[in-house]
This record gives sequence, structure tokens and C-alpha cells, in this order.
Amino acid sequence: MPNINPDRLLSDLRELRQFGACGNGVVRQSLSPIDIVSRRWLVQKLKEAGLEASIDGIGTVFGRSRASGKALLIGSHTDTQPTGGWLDGAMGVIYGLEIARAFGESPQTRSLAVDVASWIDEEGTFASFVGSRSFVGEDVDSLIEQARDKDGQSMRDAIRAAGLENEPRARIEQGRYVAYLEPHIEQGGVLEASRKRIGVVTTIVGIRELEIVFSGQQNHAGTTPMKIRKDAAAALFAFACQINSEFARLTGPQTVWTIGQVELHPGAPSIVPGRAEMILQFRDSNAAKLDELQARALALVDAADAAGPVRVTATALKDAVAPTVMNAGLQKHIAAAAERHAPGAWISMPSGAGHDAQVIATRIPSCMVFVPSIAGISHDFAEDTSEDDIALGCQVAASAAESILRAARSSEVKPSRF
Amino acid sequence: MPNINPDRLLSDLRELRQFGACGNGVVRQSLSPIDIVSRRWLVQKLKEAGLEASIDGIGTVFGRSRASGKALLIGSHTDTQPTGGWLDGAMGVIYGLEIARAFGESPQTRSLAVDVASWIDEEGTFASFVGSRSFVGEDVDSLIEQARDKDGQSMRDAIRAAGLENEPRARIEQGRYVAYLEPHIEQGGVLEASRKRIGVVTTIVGIRELEIVFSGQQNHAGTTPMKIRKDAAAALFAFACQINSEFARLTGPQTVWTIGQVELHPGAPSIVPGRAEMILQFRDSNAAKLDELQARALALVDAADAAGPVRVTATALKDAVAPTVMNAGLQKHIAAAAERHAPGAWISMPSGAGHDAQVIATRIPSCMVFVPSIAGISHDFAEDTSEDDIALGCQVAASAAESILRAARSSEVKPSRF
Repeated sequence: MPNINPDRLLSDLRELRQFGACGNGVVRQSLSPIDIVSRRWLVQKLKEAGLEASIDGIGTVFGRSRASGKALLIGSHTDTQPTGGWLDGAMGVIYGLEIARAFGESPQTRSLAVDVASWIDEEGTFASFVGSRSFVGEDVDSLIEQARDKDGQSMRDAIRAAGLENEPRARIEQGRYVAYLEPHIEQGGVLEASRKRIGVVTTIVGIRELEIVFSGQQNHAGTTPMKIRKDAAAALFAFACQINSEFARLTGPQTVWTIGQVELHPGAPSIVPGRAEMILQFRDSNAAKLDELQARALALVDAADAAGPVRVTATALKDAVAPTVMNAGLQKHIAAAAERHAPGAWISMPSGAGHDAQVIATRIPSCMVFVPSIAGISHDFAEDTSEDDIALGCQVAASAAESILRAARSSEVKPSRF
Repeated sequence: MPNINPDRLLSDLRELRQFGACGNGVVRQSLSPIDIVSRRWLVQKLKEAGLEASIDGIGTVFGRSRASGKALLIGSHTDTQPTGGWLDGAMGVIYGLEIARAFGESPQTRSLAVDVASWIDEEGTFASFVGSRSFVGEDVDSLIEQARDKDGQSMRDAIRAAGLENEPRARIEQGRYVAYLEPHIEQGGVLEASRKRIGVVTTIVGIRELEIVFSGQQNHAGTTPMKIRKDAAAALFAFACQINSEFARLTGPQTVWTIGQVELHPGAPSIVPGRAEMILQFRDSNAAKLDELQARALALVDAADAAGPVRVTATALKDAVAPTVMNAGLQKHIAAAAERHAPGAWISMPSGAGHDAQVIATRIPSCMVFVPSIAGISHDFAEDTSEDDIALGCQVAASAAESILRAARSSEVKPSRF
């Protein structure tokens, strides 16, 4: 059994945290200067672990094992939200580094190939999942040209500024991978609430987003009587309350929905808003439930529009993500490792967040393992996980990695029955 | 009777419109370069009309009649909203110019003194009503130091950039003024709806503003179950719906309320907002009604805070404006002039918008006259008034000005009864 080194693991995680540290959190958005510095550091660490490593032509860090035969790919991301936590993504990548290192240190596992990836821009500073999408063969060139960060810089220009535009891009190597494993913090409070320490991910939930626009008449807030107003904000508030009431009625056991972005135009205390916009996002692991929620939302839009006096329209945003089921065989390997290292302290659970695993799963059998998030907090500086849980998660992932690779090797050498 | 010249009036209004013209609207915020250019133009026009005119030390344009005796002050503002209309404020100032000119042209009115003012920053690019507040004797120096525009420039720096910091400031001249008259567009739809052409203003409504803050817990929109969320935005939406329902129940005949500004933090589709803010503004000509509405709003805040899970707090903003009653005697002069030039086509009505007249009224008996706004639209590029109504309003104001001044002169020469 490969034994990971908890002190070395935590030391590397803390070192990575220093790149963009901001209080307890980290500000290290994709392709920012500090992100590039951290990627060079990661390449060096992977090389010291014995891998062939480099930053590819769009920013993904890829480390390739020198061992022969089928390989396991372990990955996640080291970019952060605008004001992110220190473990979201970073933990999975450093798990990969530590597992590759632990495998190389033991004669029993030295021959097993573990590749490690830090996919660029999981968090969508420019566009979500660009690194993993490029890796599985999607043509991302027009995306890179068009995607811009909040300051209006294109991803193409950011890649050029980082001096990466002439580097080769990491691409899936046909026949190499037996599986993709993405370890991650849970980012929610399910493990903590159920007093468990490991989550074996069954499904990554699907995401739908509707942009809903309310078009009224901008006017003076003092001189326009209530009866003749076409107040776009008032229509938005009423609609939001309807959604929150109706979705609560229709919700499945894992449904979540959020109105996290709202704009009022022009947005001044003395002006009746003429236009208001919201993004309504909802997630579920069941595609039929997503269809049901979307149909209800659109019916409410039509009803509000018909009732007037404000026009209401909805547009389904393009980046809708279908629910992705994790490979059942791989889940068993993780469950067995979890039961070995934390008997009775693990559960199977869906992932409410999106992950690169949902992209990689289109080409490689994929699986995920979760560790608890303290107080369920993430996408916030306060995000954290106990050191014991961080170490346990890595040991579970390492044991699962070994058993996945050994099972693949044994099936390779099995004589064909035909 | 002074006869105003409609063609000259409209020609001057169109010329002023060119400073900052943007489609049908105007972008001419206080102390911007184009605003300063327009003020120099106005000074020249006032001089050509025979007045002593200059830009004062904070930007107000002031034209003083050379006639002796009690004077009538006619004023409004030539600064605009960020995306404003061409008549809001500008019309009243050009009325003053045209009336001063018409008075000077006729031997019967040449001896009557009409002063003209364009008060700086009525619209609050830096802070509302700075010009009129300075004129009535308020110490505005610390305000000028602290008030900043959207780009963070202080009003002090903008005054310095305009080269005005060493100019004297216009100040009320004790004993000079019999009255202040502010002609203005209605900015609402009451005149149009009642098919009237002139409004005699009875009261300028009072304004209250509450800043209401919702403090929850920022979190991941995919991984945070609905039951454990502390969603600041959801709390804001529910509160807004309660306000709209409760205020509709309590409303007086002229009450208006508006939630025109909302911020969600951090404001992303995939993040449960941890903080949300709104400005709730309400107006009424009755101070007791304002008290009642404010008490109800604060009770709803307390109830929402007690219900949880989001904390809710309210702060009354400092710039609350008390209702201001227009001088009853002056209203009679305007009503008589309206009946003379537009028999049966005028009404008495409150002003839903704030005006410099509410500031000047603290020191000088004040009155206002309104002309219709097409479709009730203002604070918008689409703001407009028919040319016939613009001309009629100026003639009514001119006739009222003459009768106000003549009444004052006759009372001056009356022998004292004691």
C-alpha cells in the first residue's frame, strides 16, 4: 500500500497557498501573474517527483509519469474564484503530486503510472473548464479568442502575456488512461452534518441557467404616480418571490436554486427602473427534475409577461450542464479504500458543484472523492478543512489509485476468453 | 403686459441643448467641461439681456438686474442627470432669461427688477442643491470638500479645475427679494392625464430614504442545501414584496415609493449572496404620512430580522427632505396669470420631485409653475414638452412675475397705517 506523507502534503498545500494569499483565502485567478508563478512552482514540484512536467499552450500544468503501461490521471485545478478559498481545486492537484511521489518511493508501486494535471480556468475567469475541454479534444480556439475576464482582457491576450502561446497543448493520449480521479473538498455541509469524513461521488449535478429580463419604463421616482408606473424592479421582486415559492413546492431531495445576480437600470434611488435582469440558476442530479423546474419557470415568465405592465422574457443560457454519472466500478474502488481507512465514516453522495471530472468523463471513466468543508463554506475566504481530513482524503485516494491501477493491469494480462 | 418672444425662447433652449446633446437627451453633469462651457454661454446671454452676470465661486450662474427696488428671483438649474432630458431645469433658467429680456424691452416693465439664477448641482452629481443651499447662507465648504462624483473626484477639485475657486459666491441680499419663482417641467403625467397645460404648485413633497442591509452567509450555489442557506438576496426579494404590498395598503392619494437601487454581493450566478442592500425611497406632501410609512417599514425590518436566518438592519439616510408648502399669495398670482392665458386649462398640484425652490423657500417666499411632460417621462433622454406648452408656460410666468412685482411695489409705497 502506498503511504502518503501527511506533513509533506500539508507543507506543499501551504506553500501553494502563499501564491495569492489574502487573509485565510486566496486570490489567484486563471492566468494572472501570480497564477503563472504558482504554475511554474507546480511544474518544478512535479519534476522533483519524477514526472515529465510543463505548462501547456493555454496554461494547464501537466505531469506525465515515466512508468509504462496504463495510467491513472489525477487532477483538479489551482486557479481560484475572485475571492476564493485555499483548498478549492488546489487540494486535488497536490493530492496528485503527493500520490505520484508516494508511488515512486515504494518498490511495490513504482511501476504504476500516475499522471497529474492542473486544468486551466476551471473557475471561469475567462470561461469554465477550458483546460479539461481542450484536453478531451474540444476545439477551444474561438472560445479563447472571445472569452474575456472582468477587465475585458481576452484569454488569448492573457496566454500571450504569460508567454505560453507557442507551447504545445496537453491532449488525451489514446489508450493510455484507465481512469480519471478528481479529489476535491465537498464545498457543502452534507458530510459535516452527517458526521462523515469521506464522500464517494455518485453524480455531478446538472445546471440550468435562465436569464430573465424585465422591460418597463424608466421614470422619475417622485413625479410618476404608482398607478401608471411600469417598474421593472418591482416586477423582478414579485417574480423572484414566485420562483422561491413555486420551486420550494417542486423541489427534489437535492434540488438547489439561486438568484445570485441582479441588475437594475439605471440603478438610482430616485429613478423608477426601466429595465431589470436576473440570472436564475438551478441544479439537480436528475435531468427530468431540471426539465420540470425549467418548464415551471418559463410558465411563470409567460404569466408575468401576459399580466403586464412590464414585459418579461427568458433566455436559456448556453452553458447548461447535463448531470454526469460517475463510473460505478471506480466508485467501488474508492468506497473500499474509504472503508479501509475510515470504517463506517464515508457515504455516497452527489456533487452539487461542477468539476472538470464532468468534462473528462466524456472520454475517460471518471470518479471523485470528497473531504468535508468546515461549516459547509466555500467560494469564500473562510473555506477550510481539518488537517486530519485532508490527510485522510489523500490516503484514501492513494489506496484507491493503487487498486484501480492493479485491477487494470490484471485485466490487461488476462488471456482473452476468445 | 410683458410679451415673451416664443421663437427666441425656443431658439435659446435649443442652443443650450447643444451643450452635451446626446440623441434627444443631454449629458451635462455639474462642473463637467461641457457644463462649464454652457455656463459661460449663459453668462453672455444674461449680459446681452442687460443683467450683471457671472459664474460664482462654486458654479452657480447669477444674473442681477440693474433696475432698482424689490426684485423677483427666477431660477432653476442647467445641470442634468447622467442621462437626462433637455428641459429638466434648463427650461426654467431660459424662462428667466427671456422674462428679464421681455421686461427690459417694454417701457412699462423696464423698471421692474428680475434676477436670474442657474443653481449648481441640483441633480446631485456631487451633492443635491449645493448652489441654492450656498445662496441661502448654508456653509457648504465641508460638503464641497467631501462630496464626490461617481469617478471619485471631489467637488472641490472640480471647482478648481473649472478655475472658479477664487470667484465670490452668490449670497442672498437682505431685503432685495419679494419672491422666488421656479418654472419647471412637471416630470410626471398628471397634467397630461387631466388634459391641463399649467400646474400651480401647492407643495413640494417630502422624501425619506432608508438603506436596508441584509446580512447572510456567502456560499456555493451548488453545494449548499436550501435548508441551511442564509441567502441575503432571497431575504431582500421577500422584503421588497412585503413593502410593495404593505405600502399599497397604507398609501395616501399622492404617496409614491421606489426601490430603485439594489446590490447583491458578490453578485455571481453560482454564489449564494452573503450580503444584499437596497435603498427604499418614499415621498408624500404630508409629513404624518411619511412618519407612518417609515414606522411600518422599520417594523417590517425588525420582523424580518427576528424571523431570520438573515440579519436585516435599516438606516435612515441623512438627506431626508421635509414637505415644503409654496407661498399661498404667490400661488394666487400664478393662478390668475394661468387663467388669463389658458382659461380653465390649469390646476393646482403638488410637486413629486424635489426642487431648489424647497431650499430657497427657507429664506424667500417661493412658488413654482409647471408645464406638461409628454407621456410623463423625465430623467430619461425621451423627456419632452410641446413647443406650444413651453411658450405658454413662459408667458404665464412672465405675467405672474409682473403682477408679483407690481403688488410688491404698491405695498412698498403704501403709507404705513401706524
